Amino acid sequence: MSVSDIKRIVLDVLKPHHPGIVELSQHLSVLEGVSGVNITIIEVDQDTETVKITVEGNAIVFEDVENSITEAGAVIHSVDSVSAGKRLVEEVETSQDR
Amino acid sequence: MSVSDIKRIVLDVLKPHHPGIVELSQHLSVLEGVSGVNITIIEVDQDTETVKITVEGNAIVFEDVENSITEAGAVIHSVDSVSAGKRLVEEVETSQDR
Amino acid sequence: MSVSDIKRIVLDVLKPHHPGIVELSQHLSVLEGVSGVNITIIEVDQDTETVKITVEGNAIVFEDVENSITEAGAVIHSVDSVSAGKRLVEEVETSQDR
Amino acid sequence: MSVSDIKRIVLDVLKPHHPGIVELSQHLSVLEGVSGVNITIIEVDQDTETVKITVEGNAIVFEDVENSITEAGAVIHSVDSVSAGKRLVEEVETSQDR
Amino acid sequence: MSVSDIKRIVLDVLKPHHPGIVELSQHLSVLEGVSGVNITIIEVDQDTETVKITVEGNAIVFEDVENSITEAGAVIHSVDSVSAGKRLVEEVETSQDR
Amino acid sequence: MSVSDIKRIVLDVLKPHHPGIVELSQHLSVLEGVSGVNITIIEVDQDTETVKITVEGNAIVFEDVENSITEAGAVIHSVDSVSAGKRLVEEVETSQDR
Amino acid sequence: MSVSDIKRIVLDVLKPHHPGIVELSQHLSVLEGVSGVNITIIEVDQDTETVKITVEGNAIVFEDVENSITEAGAVIHSVDSVSAGKRLVEEVETSQDR
Repeated sequence: MSVSDIKRIVLDVLKPHHPGIVELSQHLSVLEGVSGVNITIIEVDQDTETVKITVEGNAIVFEDVENSITEAGAVIHSVDSVSAGKRLVEEVETSQDR
Repeated sequence: MSVSDIKRIVLDVLKPHHPGIVELSQHLSVLEGVSGVNITIIEVDQDTETVKITVEGNAIVFEDVENSITEAGAVIHSVDSVSAGKRLVEEVETSQDR
Repeated sequence: MSVSDIKRIVLDVLKPHHPGIVELSQHLSVLEGVSGVNITIIEVDQDTETVKITVEGNAIVFEDVENSITEAGAVIHSVDSVSAGKRLVEEVETSQDR
Repeated sequence: MSVSDIKRIVLDVLKPHHPGIVELSQHLSVLEGVSGVNITIIEVDQDTETVKITVEGNAIVFEDVENSITEAGAVIHSVDSVSAGKRLVEEVETSQDR
Repeated sequence: MSVSDIKRIVLDVLKPHHPGIVELSQHLSVLEGVSGVNITIIEVDQDTETVKITVEGNAIVFEDVENSITEAGAVIHSVDSVSAGKRLVEEVETSQDR
Repeated sequence: MSVSDIKRIVLDVLKPHHPGIVELSQHLSVLEGVSGVNITIIEVDQDTETVKITVEGNAIVFEDVENSITEAGAVIHSVDSVSAGKRLVEEVETSQDR
Repeated sequence: MSVSDIKRIVLDVLKPHHPGIVELSQHLSVLEGVSGVNITIIEVDQDTETVKITVEGNAIVFEDVENSITEAGAVIHSVDSVSAGKRLVEEVETSQDR
């Protein structure tokens, strides 16, 4: 089966304080197929911090993203959202979500 | 009776943890008539997870979407929203919804 | 008195589970004067489901919409909103609605 | 004193169930100076229903709108909002409204 | 000191029921330098009603607006917001407003 | 060190009732480098009123703004927000603000 | 490993009252690679104030931003959000954030 392009991944990640999110965002954003990355702090604890990582691009290679995060000593808690295909589709809010 | 094109389907799906949403979104997004897919995690349980799948395209074939989901060992709990026709119509919020 | 064009109708409909909203949206969207339809599930009961149907087009024929819904074994509970005229006018929220 | 053009009127109207809002919206939308009408149900009672009517156009004649509503056996409870002038001005929300 | 142009004024006004807001909005919208007016009902009492009047234009003359309102037997309770200058500046919401 | 241009300042100001916000907004909007001003009433007390002043322009001179406000007998309680640089940057809301 | 461009940084900073945010925003906005800065007051205490600093540009040098803040006698409490890459990616809100 052919495989389509990943346009966006939203990740819930637990990481040590170092490397910081400035450095981690730069490492992720140079990966092939990635056009930009946002990392936002969700919660800070004594030794770790929970961050939300949004990766966007034309053809994200998920394994590369995983590897970069692992190399930084961080752990992906969950993949919260994925958009794949020829164009980026957003999650649609329906009556049941309100 | 002629049949018009499905432009968007929003599904409430219960799935095992594997395949993950990265893999499932890629399988769905290569279906004919599909231009993009978003899968977002709604709730995670021990053996399963509830996800919301949004499929958009010019002429989605619902049976193909159903088959791909079933092949992944997942179950469609409900079809929450469908848009069909020559162009994509959004749900309109009225005074009664507020 | 001349009669103007209906551009959008929002309906509160009670329907049996079959036909599903995929099938019903396709039947409605092929009606003359209709350019697109959205059907969203509001509530699911044992034998029936309440859905919100939004029909948009350049010149919707209300009787045709009614007939398609009746043929599907469904009942229009209420017509919640109608837009008619040369262009589609949205409901305006005023201070009194907040 | 010269009189400027009315671009939008929002009305709170009490009406009998017949004629329905599909028919009433069509009657209002063919009035001179009117380009479109939205009627949304606010509350349904046994013999009557409260609706919000939004009329937009380049030069709405308020008396014509009043007459059409009266002919339908309905009563204008209040004129909730009016926009007049060379262009349509929206109500602006200020700090005091929040 | 030179004086710049008023682009928008938002007024909190107490008025008798007559003239109605249709008539008052038309009187205000024909003033020189005014391009449009919105009047929205905030609260209705037995003999009076509180309305919010939004006046927009390229060079509003505040005294003319005041006079038109006074001639209608109404009273300006407060001038809630003013935008002046070469272009219309909106109120900006900051962290402290949330 | 070179100094860049101020594009927007948001001020929390305590002022006497006179001059009113119409007059004050006009004085501020004619200052060099200012393209527009919004003044919105936040709270009215017996002898004073608290207002939010938003000044926008290509190169606002803060001292001039301060002087105009002081000349009006008003006091700057706080400078709530400043945008400076080649283009106007908005405050970004992050997960921590929600 | 190559390093990509930082497009936006959002900082939580504790600073003395002097220099004020007008002066600090100007110093930050002249740094190389920075196109604009917003500083918004979050909380004011007796000797210090907590501010949110949003820096945007084509290639922000984080060390320069840090140095400018330190020179102003201020302390970065946390880097709340970073966007890096060829284009600015925003944090995406998912079902889990609502």
